[in-house]
Amino acid sequence: MTKQNVAVIGLGSMGLGIACSALRGAHRVWGSDPDPAQMTKFQGDGGENEPPIKVADILDVVVVVVLNAAQTEDVLFGAKGIVPALKKGAVVVSCATVPPAFARDMGARCMALGVHYLDAPISGGAKKSMNGQLSIMAAGSPDAFDAARPLLSSVSETLFDLGPEVGAGSAMKSVNQLLAGVHIATMAEAMTFGLTQGVTADKFIEVISKCAGTSWMLENRAPHVAAGDYTPHSSVNIWPKDLGIVLDIAETVNFDAPITTAALAQFKAAADMGLGFEDDAAVVKVYAEKSGLQLPKAK
Amino acid sequence: MTKQNVAVIGLGSMGLGIACSALRGAHRVWGSDPDPAQMTKFQGDGGENEPPIKVADILDVVVVVVLNAAQTEDVLFGAKGIVPALKKGAVVVSCATVPPAFARDMGARCMALGVHYLDAPISGGAKKSMNGQLSIMAAGSPDAFDAARPLLSSVSETLFDLGPEVGAGSAMKSVNQLLAGVHIATMAEAMTFGLTQGVTADKFIEVISKCAGTSWMLENRAPHVAAGDYTPHSSVNIWPKDLGIVLDIAETVNFDAPITTAALAQFKAAADMGLGFEDDAAVVKVYAEKSGLQLPKAK
Repeated sequence: MTKQNVAVIGLGSMGLGIACSALRGAHRVWGSDPDPAQMTKFQGDGGENEPPIKVADILDVVVVVVLNAAQTEDVLFGAKGIVPALKKGAVVVSCATVPPAFARDMGARCMALGVHYLDAPISGGAKKSMNGQLSIMAAGSPDAFDAARPLLSSVSETLFDLGPEVGAGSAMKSVNQLLAGVHIATMAEAMTFGLTQGVTADKFIEVISKCAGTSWMLENRAPHVAAGDYTPHSSVNIWPKDLGIVLDIAETVNFDAPITTAALAQFKAAADMGLGFEDDAAVVKVYAEKSGLQLPKAK
Repeated sequence: MTKQNVAVIGLGSMGLGIACSALRGAHRVWGSDPDPAQMTKFQGDGGENEPPIKVADILDVVVVVVLNAAQTEDVLFGAKGIVPALKKGAVVVSCATVPPAFARDMGARCMALGVHYLDAPISGGAKKSMNGQLSIMAAGSPDAFDAARPLLSSVSETLFDLGPEVGAGSAMKSVNQLLAGVHIATMAEAMTFGLTQGVTADKFIEVISKCAGTSWMLENRAPHVAAGDYTPHSSVNIWPKDLGIVLDIAETVNFDAPITTAALAQFKAAADMGLGFEDDAAVVKVYAEKSGLQLPKAK
């Protein structure tokens, strides 16, 4: 497979995983992050030293793995934006969860400068990212896919091709986040409801994971609660943001999403309790606090 | 395995499946149902002709598969209640979704007459019931388990032993129903939200079922929507009942379940639209109607 010159902007848990997977794929990788600790990890794994903007003219792929739309726009087109410095035919792979309309705008602005744009939100978590096993929900022109394919094959296990229209990837991601967020909060609601009826956390996991009430998120997050371990894999703070994006999009089309709204309120309550940087399973503490329930302690 | 004399009270889709699985297991099976069509099916498969009450003194196991607590109490202890006519050491296997406190009451009243009681809600749907592959969330004394075991092994694939305290099965079932009901309604919310963003029902299923947003219910019910087929496997009307039981239990312990409350409102809205006897995936029509969306038509 072709080896590419890649920049990864944003070396949080997902971005660092992408960068390391790309390095294992023998691509040359430049990276940037405001956190020096993340830069040290990246460079320790073989990442280049120069900031990506210094080598913009030789980059084939720029992967943007920042928090939201505002940061994405700043990275691409802000005062130190990288897109105007890229060579024609390079491709931007935009991974943050953003509204589809924002993705379309970024895509058009890149195309005006001769740069391809892949609307490419990611799913799978930090561990899969580090293992090069991400799921990518990608939309963009065939040229954009072709320009990014060598890098994508190094970092992803599943590449969904959602067609040529930029925005389709972000749309699917927002649908996924709606479900994932609601399922985490519902796991918390069901587990604490069970505690009021004598169903222990361990018994909950043992039985429900084999029944019709199970979900991917339940099987992934309920064990955190049972172990009393809220080390953040994905933090509470993700959900006011991502469910907020879902509801913002919904509002633009007058779509009423009452279950999402109820789940969002629980994550906001968790953030208000100071749990924003704990694992998102900590939304269970909102229920426990309100009902005076004892959750399992760390073992 | 011992062959038992079994009565199945309630021959709806779940009860008929249990009766037929018991017949295939070479047990003698008596049955009753107000619907003559169900009685005809049952007797066509080898069911006995007499009403169970006529042979109560030779029954080993009475499986009660009716709609709710009121019907269960009527079958067991009403004017024509069967428990007083059973021999000592017989066992009642109670499968309806009921509050744990109701189950404890029934258990105590059976025990006072020398009859064992297994609090044994079921999960799995009509097809698994017919194939003898139910999941049973059972709680009761070791004697109750022993008395029911030959029959249970003919009708179930997974028997969860939730301990000796009657009520623990119903508690786990209510936890499962909370999750299952919310997940169906959330599937509907997410799929229609996706439609507003150009995500087709088929693409929704293809992508989301492989992502973190998936659930058992999504994978089972979303295809009904994609196929435009609302033939009832499990009907909308189940959910105002079962989520109502969840919220009734929750209220007794002052537990606040806002996501369940939001999902219940959607099922009630579906029933109010006249969809009560359609497949529960028809809750999607509440969202489609409100937002003027076109759902997939029957193929």
